[in-house]
Amino acid sequence: MKIAIFCGSMSDRKLMKNAEDLLKELNILYIYYIISAHRLPDVLLKTIQKIEIKKVDVIIAGAGLSAHLPGIISSHTYLPVIGVPIYNYPNPLSGQDSLFSMIQMPKGVPVATVGINNSYNAALLAIRILSIKYDKIKKLLFKFKEKTRTKLIQKIEKNL
Amino acid sequence: MKIAIFCGSMSDRKLMKNAEDLLKELNILYIYYIISAHRLPDVLLKTIQKIEIKKVDVIIAGAGLSAHLPGIISSHTYLPVIGVPIYNYPNPLSGQDSLFSMIQMPKGVPVATVGINNSYNAALLAIRILSIKYDKIKKLLFKFKEKTRTKLIQKIEKNL
Amino acid sequence: MKIAIFCGSMSDRKLMKNAEDLLKELNILYIYYIISAHRLPDVLLKTIQKIEIKKVDVIIAGAGLSAHLPGIISSHTYLPVIGVPIYNYPNPLSGQDSLFSMIQMPKGVPVATVGINNSYNAALLAIRILSIKYDKIKKLLFKFKEKTRTKLIQKIEKNL
Amino acid sequence: MKIAIFCGSMSDRKLMKNAEDLLKELNILYIYYIISAHRLPDVLLKTIQKIEIKKVDVIIAGAGLSAHLPGIISSHTYLPVIGVPIYNYPNPLSGQDSLFSMIQMPKGVPVATVGINNSYNAALLAIRILSIKYDKIKKLLFKFKEKTRTKLIQKIEKNL
Amino acid sequence: MKIAIFCGSMSDRKLMKNAEDLLKELNILYIYYIISAHRLPDVLLKTIQKIEIKKVDVIIAGAGLSAHLPGIISSHTYLPVIGVPIYNYPNPLSGQDSLFSMIQMPKGVPVATVGINNSYNAALLAIRILSIKYDKIKKLLFKFKEKTRTKLIQKIEKNL
Amino acid sequence: MKIAIFCGSMSDRKLMKNAEDLLKELNILYIYYIISAHRLPDVLLKTIQKIEIKKVDVIIAGAGLSAHLPGIISSHTYLPVIGVPIYNYPNPLSGQDSLFSMIQMPKGVPVATVGINNSYNAALLAIRILSIKYDKIKKLLFKFKEKTRTKLIQKIEKNL
Amino acid sequence: MKIAIFCGSMSDRKLMKNAEDLLKELNILYIYYIISAHRLPDVLLKTIQKIEIKKVDVIIAGAGLSAHLPGIISSHTYLPVIGVPIYNYPNPLSGQDSLFSMIQMPKGVPVATVGINNSYNAALLAIRILSIKYDKIKKLLFKFKEKTRTKLIQKIEKNL
Amino acid sequence: MKIAIFCGSMSDRKLMKNAEDLLKELNILYIYYIISAHRLPDVLLKTIQKIEIKKVDVIIAGAGLSAHLPGIISSHTYLPVIGVPIYNYPNPLSGQDSLFSMIQMPKGVPVATVGINNSYNAALLAIRILSIKYDKIKKLLFKFKEKTRTKLIQKIEKNL
Repeated sequence: MKIAIFCGSMSDRKLMKNAEDLLKELNILYIYYIISAHRLPDVLLKTIQKIEIKKVDVIIAGAGLSAHLPGIISSHTYLPVIGVPIYNYPNPLSGQDSLFSMIQMPKGVPVATVGINNSYNAALLAIRILSIKYDKIKKLLFKFKEKTRTKLIQKIEKNL
Repeated sequence: MKIAIFCGSMSDRKLMKNAEDLLKELNILYIYYIISAHRLPDVLLKTIQKIEIKKVDVIIAGAGLSAHLPGIISSHTYLPVIGVPIYNYPNPLSGQDSLFSMIQMPKGVPVATVGINNSYNAALLAIRILSIKYDKIKKLLFKFKEKTRTKLIQKIEKNL
Repeated sequence: MKIAIFCGSMSDRKLMKNAEDLLKELNILYIYYIISAHRLPDVLLKTIQKIEIKKVDVIIAGAGLSAHLPGIISSHTYLPVIGVPIYNYPNPLSGQDSLFSMIQMPKGVPVATVGINNSYNAALLAIRILSIKYDKIKKLLFKFKEKTRTKLIQKIEKNL
Repeated sequence: MKIAIFCGSMSDRKLMKNAEDLLKELNILYIYYIISAHRLPDVLLKTIQKIEIKKVDVIIAGAGLSAHLPGIISSHTYLPVIGVPIYNYPNPLSGQDSLFSMIQMPKGVPVATVGINNSYNAALLAIRILSIKYDKIKKLLFKFKEKTRTKLIQKIEKNL
Repeated sequence: MKIAIFCGSMSDRKLMKNAEDLLKELNILYIYYIISAHRLPDVLLKTIQKIEIKKVDVIIAGAGLSAHLPGIISSHTYLPVIGVPIYNYPNPLSGQDSLFSMIQMPKGVPVATVGINNSYNAALLAIRILSIKYDKIKKLLFKFKEKTRTKLIQKIEKNL
Repeated sequence: MKIAIFCGSMSDRKLMKNAEDLLKELNILYIYYIISAHRLPDVLLKTIQKIEIKKVDVIIAGAGLSAHLPGIISSHTYLPVIGVPIYNYPNPLSGQDSLFSMIQMPKGVPVATVGINNSYNAALLAIRILSIKYDKIKKLLFKFKEKTRTKLIQKIEKNL
Repeated sequence: MKIAIFCGSMSDRKLMKNAEDLLKELNILYIYYIISAHRLPDVLLKTIQKIEIKKVDVIIAGAGLSAHLPGIISSHTYLPVIGVPIYNYPNPLSGQDSLFSMIQMPKGVPVATVGINNSYNAALLAIRILSIKYDKIKKLLFKFKEKTRTKLIQKIEKNL
Repeated sequence: MKIAIFCGSMSDRKLMKNAEDLLKELNILYIYYIISAHRLPDVLLKTIQKIEIKKVDVIIAGAGLSAHLPGIISSHTYLPVIGVPIYNYPNPLSGQDSLFSMIQMPKGVPVATVGINNSYNAALLAIRILSIKYDKIKKLLFKFKEKTRTKLIQKIEKNL
């Protein structure tokens, strides 16, 4: 087990589907937790404590509105935590609330934030982090980038 | 003991001085906790659990940047929690980050947010809440409003 | 009678339905006033004056655009006033206008503001405030939080 | 008496000095009221009621933060109300709070809003409005514009 | 002829229909000009010059995006100019571009700006301005406000 | 004469000094006009009409607040117009008002906008445009870029 | 060949269709490149280097989100680069991200930015730039402006 | 060598001093590159290519305004890239331009963004990432967190 993904509700999980799709495509194992930081704070804490035993290397956490989930996780762990600010249409404030809540963390508790609703990049960032430790994943990442590149070039040539 | 005030650092406490001044002027007891939600999360949790024993009725919490403190407290208590978004010049984003982080809480975990850096109103709101329970505080509040009013009218008359 | 809810129009009332649903679910009595702060200012003032006689403890007021209603009420009462900034799609400015109009009150006239369109949290905050005075409501609140918690945990377990 | 100016405090009056300077320069009479919309709402109402007797034609009102003053006045009068959103440095939010609070009035209660802290334009707008009724002021306005124009052209020629 | 309305295109005229409806309801004459400030600047200038001959007292001008139309008109006339910032969905920037372009005029060239897309208030403001000059319109305005008020109160009573 | 620079006041000219410094350094002639778009609209129009006779190829125009100057010029000419949004501290709104007023021009009247207060880039853009026509300026531009590059590399090496 | 257009994907090309339509209408040749600045950076660099050989005079580049494409191109060329900030609904942040990413370039690397999604103005700006060099295009531009003007005036007359 | 830090100028390096101080305090080696992404793009590319040979595991890059540096680096490497949005007072836009430019990267090119000017958190995030690979750094991180914690608790006790 290398990656743990957290979000606060099933509807957030749907908005973060791109992350799961990428991890599945690359056959990278992950464990998923759906726990609201605010409504089940004690369950969240117990879960974070169990994670290090489970040999998780990187954590991804998505949250909307007052998006505290990744920050709270980061305050309870030594692992790198990647945050995905979620914008769930037709919420007002265009995801600026989630982005600011997530990224403006105080000194000492970093959250590696990616673009609004960009869970794909969160997964790819997690893989890049794993790749500095696991050679197998580094090779996988190389092959994946090569494949993506080839597809992009073919697409361009087709369009010209 | 009726009111508990929380903030994350001594510099935040200074920015919330108006709240303390008002409570002192009206002789309302309060207890003060300076605990960073992100850097000492376990100390924070233990403190919140002890609060109900101490007969606290209302909680005021101020925080800046990714201002999670009032939200975390609210998720661990049944008491009304008043939040003060703190803007500490020359931080960028004008306190919009603290305001959005604090107020856009999910369903089920309310934070009664007041204006940016307006800890005076937080204290006054806490007193209004206490006044529905304690007749003594209701009388105090009446007298205080009358006094403020008289001062304002005198000031106007002086200026004319 | 414990809670009074104010809003400016029937369409605002619809957007605040979550507050009523929660109060009904918990059998908490409330009285509803639909009065535009700007179009019927004298009717509003008379209504506020009658409220204290009716033993109201907490006021909830929702408003959109230049959202003055909760502030005006707060300036005429000693009771705690909870404000709900309303965003009525497809109005421009994403509810930032209502949020800023409502929360940036001057010293001395607090409005306990909750998230944009989050009338559910306004109702829950009102109940938390009542619970410091009425033991019956405190018990109700405990039971409700327990029930909500159990439901959330079952939902998580079902999804795993 | 032709113009009435309202603001909420002496510090706001200082920020609106340009309006008074222009009216004095053009010898246009005005009456000044310093009344906080939120802290002395009843005094404000009585003052508005007296205004029509005093033969006021136009009202200027400046306010900061949750800038409700011009809107409240507008809801109690048939006269045109000009609003000046005040930004008092180092308040956060750059006067966007006052601007949005003032201008986003509901249908039926207009506030003729000018630029942030631009009380000079508020006074000039008031004079333009008076000039449609009073020929003397129309002539004054013509002369003033001519004078300003000549000064500007001389300034340009001097700089070339 | 008392009011002139300007806008830059037929689609803007549609978004300002509320102004026309109100003026028609109250039988107030107006003349309409559809001229783009940027695409037909010379036609615009000639039109403004002809306006004073036509005994226009007040000008209303609506514009979107870089909303220069009311400002340009104001720089060529002594009459009061009312500006309506237009937000034409799905344009980006939520009308903040039109609002800022219109209201932040330099000293000496005021635009009396109303809320985004709130042409109804622009028309009502124009009527309030006319009412200080024409007693007939003052009476009309009184009757209209009384009628609106009665309707609102009936609506409330029906809903209770 | 190849470049014409417009701004509305001497204080704006000071904020655009970088443009003049660059043009002087590269010995490129320019003519400067200080004319307020709103306060001297007729003088502005006459000046624009004279420009084409003067063999100007590119126009630079800087403006703050409701920054209409470049747009008005663009509506009266066939030449490329470069706009510099000016932010004059401590104006509120951080130059967002000038940026939005300048860049959101309607279809048919383009303004080539550069960064806020970045008159240096406006001048450089003007030179790039001239360089497609004048070989001499193309060579100058090449030499200048080479020189800047060498300086930057030396600076880096010195710091290592 | 006079104009080169760049964008990062087929979906961006669709959002920039107005530019192509205008260039086709005026029979101005252009070459189109669809290359992601971030996903195929080396292909992009090689393409930019080949452009000067192809006698391109002006470059148009459109990009969304972290809209780096025009800036990267500008850093590799001496030609004027026009940037179109793209807003692809329902992306959050309303195109403010693309606008700020594109326009706030450092000193020395200008991007001539037009309004959000306003590729029509980008094409027209490119034509204005070409017109200072090519008399044929200047004449074309004159005729086009005359034609547009006549159409606008007919449209107005039809509507009156 | 484990960490490489990039920024565009000496003044940016000063604003990122907290990162260097933390790395020095923990005796973690880093290499520093000061290269403008826009003014020396070819030097930047060559430097990125050399980095993998130098056994760098993580990259930190800070940038202001149109903050493209981290994104460009990310597009040329497989390593995790951490971005620091820089706000250099008195630049306008409060660092929102750098934040949006940096974080809204397209799918496939992630930048792990931290808070505005929060280079301390960037360094700490880099250390957390290294700690999943190097046990020595994991131990260091544990000790450091323990030390910080003890200091914080002592500070609190002193203040009580």
